[in-house]
Amino acid sequence: MVITSLDNPKIKKYLKLKTKKYRDNFKLYLVETDNLIKEAINNNCLVDLLALDGSINKYDFNITYVSKEIIKKLSSLDTTSNFIGVVKMKEMNDNLGSRILILDDIQDPGNLGTIIRSSVAFNISDIILSNNSVDLYNDKVIRSSEGMIYKINIIRTDLIKVIKKLKENNYLILGTNVRDGVDVKEVNSSRFALIMGNEGNGVKEEILNLCDKNLYIKMNKNCESLNLGVATGILLYELGEK
Amino acid sequence: MVITSLDNPKIKKYLKLKTKKYRDNFKLYLVETDNLIKEAINNNCLVDLLALDGSINKYDFNITYVSKEIIKKLSSLDTTSNFIGVVKMKEMNDNLGSRILILDDIQDPGNLGTIIRSSVAFNISDIILSNNSVDLYNDKVIRSSEGMIYKINIIRTDLIKVIKKLKENNYLILGTNVRDGVDVKEVNSSRFALIMGNEGNGVKEEILNLCDKNLYIKMNKNCESLNLGVATGILLYELGEK
Repeated sequence: MVITSLDNPKIKKYLKLKTKKYRDNFKLYLVETDNLIKEAINNNCLVDLLALDGSINKYDFNITYVSKEIIKKLSSLDTTSNFIGVVKMKEMNDNLGSRILILDDIQDPGNLGTIIRSSVAFNISDIILSNNSVDLYNDKVIRSSEGMIYKINIIRTDLIKVIKKLKENNYLILGTNVRDGVDVKEVNSSRFALIMGNEGNGVKEEILNLCDKNLYIKMNKNCESLNLGVATGILLYELGEK
Repeated sequence: MVITSLDNPKIKKYLKLKTKKYRDNFKLYLVETDNLIKEAINNNCLVDLLALDGSINKYDFNITYVSKEIIKKLSSLDTTSNFIGVVKMKEMNDNLGSRILILDDIQDPGNLGTIIRSSVAFNISDIILSNNSVDLYNDKVIRSSEGMIYKINIIRTDLIKVIKKLKENNYLILGTNVRDGVDVKEVNSSRFALIMGNEGNGVKEEILNLCDKNLYIKMNKNCESLNLGVATGILLYELGEK
């Protein structure tokens, strides 16, 4: 059977996933690239797989065939793929590990995806997003995470409250400040929360005030700062095993 | 005097700078953000500055006032700024320094801009782009370089030829390969050319064959690879002073 009607209840529901409100309601989101579909299957979070009528099933997962019109309406890409996956959101887990990354109002979806990827690469246990950060399930975030979004605990909450709690639990709270701070090479900790700030404004003053130390990356004075994704990558890399 | 006609010879010329062909012809390109205009003035490469009729001149540079229609036509941004700078391209300099970054068919403009920024931060002397890399004067490249594009020598040429020449001149040629290679921490060289590959395909086989060593970054096996801008940033950071 091939679904051809945009009024089909399942398709109507999936079309709603293009807006944040319904993604949050249904705890579902859409993915399109081959890599994201494969990784969703590997990570047991794919709940449905739609394919263009006539496509050969290259995945180890049952397919729902749909018309070209439906695929086009569901897709966010300029060149639509023949497959669209419906993925269930990971449950937030409040039981935090020992290597935490906190993002204070990050705005660029590509930066967030890239940082999720680096966090898995460098053994971060949990990512905490401030309430005003970009939507985690924005399609650009998901694409640039290259599927790593399935593999790490990510929570969204009020930062001040959570940082105070982490301090009580003996985490070393590390801020970042391009002007003054301690060279990251000099820091060695197995129980920390690193805080990275917004692309334009850095970490908010009231949050910096809660930090035990501010880190910086040694660089040429001709360059004022690095791209946020790159700076985060280097800090997480350095905070790994030495 | 305020220019209001799109037929004004100067405006006609500047409008052509929106295409690569004319940028290359005139050796000029447009910039829009405050930071890019300021850095262009600081680096002596601004040749003209257009401003919306009525704007207060906040720059130490003579202004040509133009109508709203002209600013809108020249702008590539959704929210047009009130100032547009015309910048002259840096001359390519074939006299290379000792710390070179080679980019083999890089495609994403944001990645290239980010990498230019990291290159200035970590004291790279020259960047060499393959002929099939994204256009250096694409407006997204310029924006994400945050003005660092004015500060570093960047040439575009045939990679095979230039790498052979570098080998004759005793540069250590460093490839990158996520599967096997030497941990970058173990490499120490003051005269090198690091080669980074295309986002999807990595460094081309025939170029890898010219390398003395392949580098990798130690990371969790759950993550196949890092974002290209992040990986380049970490390698350049590690290839700095130790």
